Amino acid sequence: MKKKRKSSGIIIIGNEILSGKTLETNSNFVCKQLFEIGVECSEICVISDQKEIIAEKVNCFRLKYDYVFTSGGIGPTHDDITSESVAYAFKKKLCINLEAKKRLVKHYSDDVLTEARLKMAYLPEDASLIDNPVSVAPGFFLENVYVLPGVPKIFQIMLSEIIKSIDRGEKFFKKTVSTILSEGIIGNYIKKIQKKFSQLEIGSYPYFKKNSFGVSLVIKGDDETYVLKATEEIYEYILSKDGKPKIF
Amino acid sequence: MKKKRKSSGIIIIGNEILSGKTLETNSNFVCKQLFEIGVECSEICVISDQKEIIAEKVNCFRLKYDYVFTSGGIGPTHDDITSESVAYAFKKKLCINLEAKKRLVKHYSDDVLTEARLKMAYLPEDASLIDNPVSVAPGFFLENVYVLPGVPKIFQIMLSEIIKSIDRGEKFFKKTVSTILSEGIIGNYIKKIQKKFSQLEIGSYPYFKKNSFGVSLVIKGDDETYVLKATEEIYEYILSKDGKPKIF
Repeated sequence: MKKKRKSSGIIIIGNEILSGKTLETNSNFVCKQLFEIGVECSEICVISDQKEIIAEKVNCFRLKYDYVFTSGGIGPTHDDITSESVAYAFKKKLCINLEAKKRLVKHYSDDVLTEARLKMAYLPEDASLIDNPVSVAPGFFLENVYVLPGVPKIFQIMLSEIIKSIDRGEKFFKKTVSTILSEGIIGNYIKKIQKKFSQLEIGSYPYFKKNSFGVSLVIKGDDETYVLKATEEIYEYILSKDGKPKIF
Repeated sequence: MKKKRKSSGIIIIGNEILSGKTLETNSNFVCKQLFEIGVECSEICVISDQKEIIAEKVNCFRLKYDYVFTSGGIGPTHDDITSESVAYAFKKKLCINLEAKKRLVKHYSDDVLTEARLKMAYLPEDASLIDNPVSVAPGFFLENVYVLPGVPKIFQIMLSEIIKSIDRGEKFFKKTVSTILSEGIIGNYIKKIQKKFSQLEIGSYPYFKKNSFGVSLVIKGDDETYVLKATEEIYEYILSKDGKPKIF
């Protein structure tokens, strides 16, 4: 039987992603980190910088998933509207957070703590701060919603800290068997193996590299013994078909 | 006034993305192509290989947006369930598509047209084929939903063909002004400029390169004259603040 695990959703906020200007990579970083601590990522969405849209998605995700992570829109400019949108979603006031302001005052000398920068201290009432060791302006969380900036370097450092603090699940176990045989050839066999090991999730992913192509079979599950057993069976089958299997 | 444009949504299907194994790039490719033809991308979602989840998202997006593009899950293996999920969403039967079968029969000699490969000819009733010049197995569309494979090389070729055939909007106009001044310094000015040119969308994006950092201001709109006028004003302001502006 599959274990009950914590679930999560990721909300990426930014017109620059929807217009194709920016290739979004923060969600991939979150997914990898969640996988390591045994938390499922169930859904990712990318939405535009619009208050109602952000609030609706935050409310949908926070009811549906144990953890919600947002990326983008908490900087000093007019298009940074995530904090006010999250406040709106939670029906909270957006007000100056004194600790956030203190940090900004300390970081910027008086003459460069502009109105734009001070905007970053306006957070939903009752929000708890998430430290930003790079550029000081904090992220925050409210119940199960973690709100982080979009700049990848800062996002990654802050996310890694959060990951240490949340309830983790038991580790996922994963093995990969690669083969030069194509999906069309091994598809039926893999279907049977998936039925036999129904407690595992077996994924089949074709790859195309410089001078070769093949398939990666990813065997994932809660129980190491079953993962290893299925891996072994698949390996032996592919070997018997001269499929040059390799285990990772 | 902003022009009424066609809208679109992208649905990325695959557990390998949610587990962090794969960095997803197909949506970025679609967004760039849509931007070129003046169609808005309003939302992207990444969901897992589960029939009910796929069907629900397809039904939600096809009512909400003019065009829906899906990526992933139409290959020959057991975890490829997009075609049956789309059939389920549309309340259509999944049945053998004779033209799709013909193409597969022609491409594969009799002994390698395995049951797994033949699975790729099972499509929702009334689906129209989308040619696959790389690996033959077609994608399909049903009303406003375009269903494509996840392998980036194949996805891109097929998507580019679709883009030629759909109703395009008028071109977006876009200019970028970069500066070495930070967002906190220019934030208030940009807010005022956004208010003045309310028909435009002005985005502010900090960047961090090897030995430098700064901000890219992206000015986007339907009317070239306004875009150029706003760009010129921003350029002059930044120049006056020794912000080393560059226009792209």
